[in-house]
Amino acid sequence: MADKAQLQEAIKTQGEVVRKLKSEKASKEQIDEEVAKLLQLKAQLGGDEGKHVFVLKTAKGTRDYNPKQMAIREKVFNIIISCFKRHGAETIDSPVFELKETLTGKYGEDSKLIYDLKDQGGELLSLRYDLTVPFARYLAMNKITNIKRYHIAKVYRRDNPAMTRGRYREFYQCDFDIAGQYDAMIPDAECLKIVYEILNELDLGDFRIKVNDRRILDGMFAVCGVPDEKFRTICSTVDKLDKMAWEDVKKEMVNEKGLSEDVADRIGEYVSMQGGQDLAERLLQDPKLSQNKQACAGLTDMKLLFSYLELFQVTDKVVFDLSLARGLDYYTGVIYEAILSQTIPALVSTPAEQNGADEAGVSVGSVAGGGRYDGLVGMFDPKGRKVPCVGVSIGIERIFSIMEQKAEASSEKVRTTETQVLVASAQKNLLEERLKLTNALWNEGIKAEVLYKKNPKLLSQLQHCEETGIPLVAILGEQELKDGVVKLRNVVSREEVDVPRADLVDEIKKRTL
Amino acid sequence: MADKAQLQEAIKTQGEVVRKLKSEKASKEQIDEEVAKLLQLKAQLGGDEGKHVFVLKTAKGTRDYNPKQMAIREKVFNIIISCFKRHGAETIDSPVFELKETLTGKYGEDSKLIYDLKDQGGELLSLRYDLTVPFARYLAMNKITNIKRYHIAKVYRRDNPAMTRGRYREFYQCDFDIAGQYDAMIPDAECLKIVYEILNELDLGDFRIKVNDRRILDGMFAVCGVPDEKFRTICSTVDKLDKMAWEDVKKEMVNEKGLSEDVADRIGEYVSMQGGQDLAERLLQDPKLSQNKQACAGLTDMKLLFSYLELFQVTDKVVFDLSLARGLDYYTGVIYEAILSQTIPALVSTPAEQNGADEAGVSVGSVAGGGRYDGLVGMFDPKGRKVPCVGVSIGIERIFSIMEQKAEASSEKVRTTETQVLVASAQKNLLEERLKLTNALWNEGIKAEVLYKKNPKLLSQLQHCEETGIPLVAILGEQELKDGVVKLRNVVSREEVDVPRADLVDEIKKRTL
Repeated sequence: MADKAQLQEAIKTQGEVVRKLKSEKASKEQIDEEVAKLLQLKAQLGGDEGKHVFVLKTAKGTRDYNPKQMAIREKVFNIIISCFKRHGAETIDSPVFELKETLTGKYGEDSKLIYDLKDQGGELLSLRYDLTVPFARYLAMNKITNIKRYHIAKVYRRDNPAMTRGRYREFYQCDFDIAGQYDAMIPDAECLKIVYEILNELDLGDFRIKVNDRRILDGMFAVCGVPDEKFRTICSTVDKLDKMAWEDVKKEMVNEKGLSEDVADRIGEYVSMQGGQDLAERLLQDPKLSQNKQACAGLTDMKLLFSYLELFQVTDKVVFDLSLARGLDYYTGVIYEAILSQTIPALVSTPAEQNGADEAGVSVGSVAGGGRYDGLVGMFDPKGRKVPCVGVSIGIERIFSIMEQKAEASSEKVRTTETQVLVASAQKNLLEERLKLTNALWNEGIKAEVLYKKNPKLLSQLQHCEETGIPLVAILGEQELKDGVVKLRNVVSREEVDVPRADLVDEIKKRTL
Repeated sequence: MADKAQLQEAIKTQGEVVRKLKSEKASKEQIDEEVAKLLQLKAQLGGDEGKHVFVLKTAKGTRDYNPKQMAIREKVFNIIISCFKRHGAETIDSPVFELKETLTGKYGEDSKLIYDLKDQGGELLSLRYDLTVPFARYLAMNKITNIKRYHIAKVYRRDNPAMTRGRYREFYQCDFDIAGQYDAMIPDAECLKIVYEILNELDLGDFRIKVNDRRILDGMFAVCGVPDEKFRTICSTVDKLDKMAWEDVKKEMVNEKGLSEDVADRIGEYVSMQGGQDLAERLLQDPKLSQNKQACAGLTDMKLLFSYLELFQVTDKVVFDLSLARGLDYYTGVIYEAILSQTIPALVSTPAEQNGADEAGVSVGSVAGGGRYDGLVGMFDPKGRKVPCVGVSIGIERIFSIMEQKAEASSEKVRTTETQVLVASAQKNLLEERLKLTNALWNEGIKAEVLYKKNPKLLSQLQHCEETGIPLVAILGEQELKDGVVKLRNVVSREEVDVPRADLVDEIKKRTL
């Protein structure tokens, strides 16, 4: 234990750090961090009367959701789940931790971000890093060859958090996947239709969905002269094109990855191309690409995909973009990513963050991503039997952040309860009557509250309604009891009307449809 | 690495163990355990061509939920959440892990069951053990003195799993709590009303809710002559009365806990008492108990509680039972526990399990429990400010198990999707028309599926409907296309009728209300 005087000095210094940050109006996050340090120092010193002082915080990179955030979250989930159900999906759930071995070798370099559990004399366990690997494990373990499922759950990454930008160490993923051997591009097209529907319904402004194919990328690298062993690393450099200028990407290819200028320039030509079905057709005629089997297979599928997207009426937002690469190793065919057009200031990344993959495994700015991964289930099957899969993950944390900011900016108050009526009284000694009426309303399925006070003031009862958005008050008094009525008050308009007890339930239902 | 021949021998032996268990029709759990060992041995040997063999399993004591289980889970959650909302509750969420320090000193002996995360160069973290401690931490951290909230989330205990009985290491808790300084017993009564409503609506058969008060227990121990320092340990012995005969409980008190026979017998008299408001009144006249301040406070509140329960019309199921103790240290007032009358064979505990607390922190057989804990939030507040709380936890895993068994036993098939209609065709080359119609239905909010095949057989399309419970098929053919109609088929009755395209959406909605 440190010397007491030293500690007191450290506390003083740290106190000044906090005051300075506050006076400079630093970010809440930064201040909280320094306050936590201060509290830790104080805890070392021992609190008042030797009482242990807790450091009151959540773990780094995590947050509680308060009722308002939960109300927004529920709204977003409802839209997404309705869409998944409209497309005939079932849902599954898996444990929050997996055998460590299950996750090993699936995430390449990112494996260092996996949270391990302490070995307490049992199995070696890790928190799930995404929902795709547990899904593949589930399919192989249960020998399922056909399923259309969604899974909404939290995943864990020991990444550098950037919480004001919606990047956390604990965050939701929202996955929809179709597993099974089907005719080409039909399930792939449905995944894109789903992204389109969800982004439309969430009303987040204009968006684009970029599409490409791993096979086209590989074919392109081959015909440009990239050595086989450099495909993956060049792929992740290309992936940075949405945040970096071509000149900088080229520099990385030449200086860091050791490509010749020539090769890089050839790649540069291709990755600047964007279009639709027409581009796929044109590239099928490209003298170099047309010689590559992989590229041809990818381009033929891309043509077919666009013909289905046409039927699904989504081609106004979908663009075939040869610069789209996506980081994850397991993709084998079509890949896609959705980007909002409108930039929200707090959600724009800073240069320091540009190298990290974001919380949903999609690059900064994007709100959904996915693709085809035909090999992953086979990695789990003892006999290596493959189950072709295609899926999409909705970047729900970024969407929450945007919705929260929208709610903040709007004048409309977010309600956190659904209470239809408060049972109230202006007079004393009517607690029993209030409880009786509340009970009758509950029994009829009405969402009702009553203040837990014997004799609350009418004003505080009305204030409770205004604060929480309860639209109606059912007021009881001696006169109302005698007359067998209830005074029903509209909180906003302040209109009051006597309603016979027998009609009360219907009247409340009618007014709170 | 073990010698190859030794390993092969071990694999042979283990293979025989597995075969024997299978031939003896041992439990799935037991077989899975031994199969996992076998696979691990095989993995050590190296699979075919040196390929690594994965052990395909979930972590000990955890499970996946398949779509059928999820459908049941959704139904149960909907009933519970509707009830919480009817009572005006908001909801919050907290991270799955907390600073280890937050959990320290809250669970007594059970602390050994907490899952710790590996220290990977950051904070010391533990998976949450329940939702009550994170709730108290949340209130103190945000200086909230008033809230009515529910929280449904998974918690983690490294307990001995008994999965066939619905006891897992990862399981849901479903908590409703009211925090705030209110007039006595009003929120407490609402918690009991909520348990009553939920158990009624879940339709699990008859049930009872036992109620007691920590202060009555403590007063009773005092007047019986139990030394102060033995209150807690005697309390946990009393807690076993729902699974052990009085004679055995007494033996434990005398032989293990060192009470005199006299003292134990005096306790025995009290804990055999059951009743309602009348019993509280009678005990207030009890010559010994009435001399104890704590007991009197508890009994007076018990009387008041029953008067509110009368207004809430739940006294037919609630019984004041002096043998109810409940294990957790943090209770300070009213405690309660709900027990189903009907015993479900697979859910009855074996003697070996009788000493453990079950997965929901309530004793074996019970499906809900809770009580008042006025001191917990103060443990987190730097100034020790108290926030009185009362709450209830629904033992949801046991309820899932019961519902699953009911579904298994019933002839009615559990649907795992909500699809209203399958778009089908009996003829070839109509994929585009099928996709176009499906798209139109999705756009109108109809839950529709289409098989991902170019030319599926009509039979396999109808089979898909029968297997998954889709009630309607919209059949397209050359003739229908020419006539501008769709043949709408009722899957069960096999009736078919031509519906004009313009009326199709309304017709589907009408038939799948």
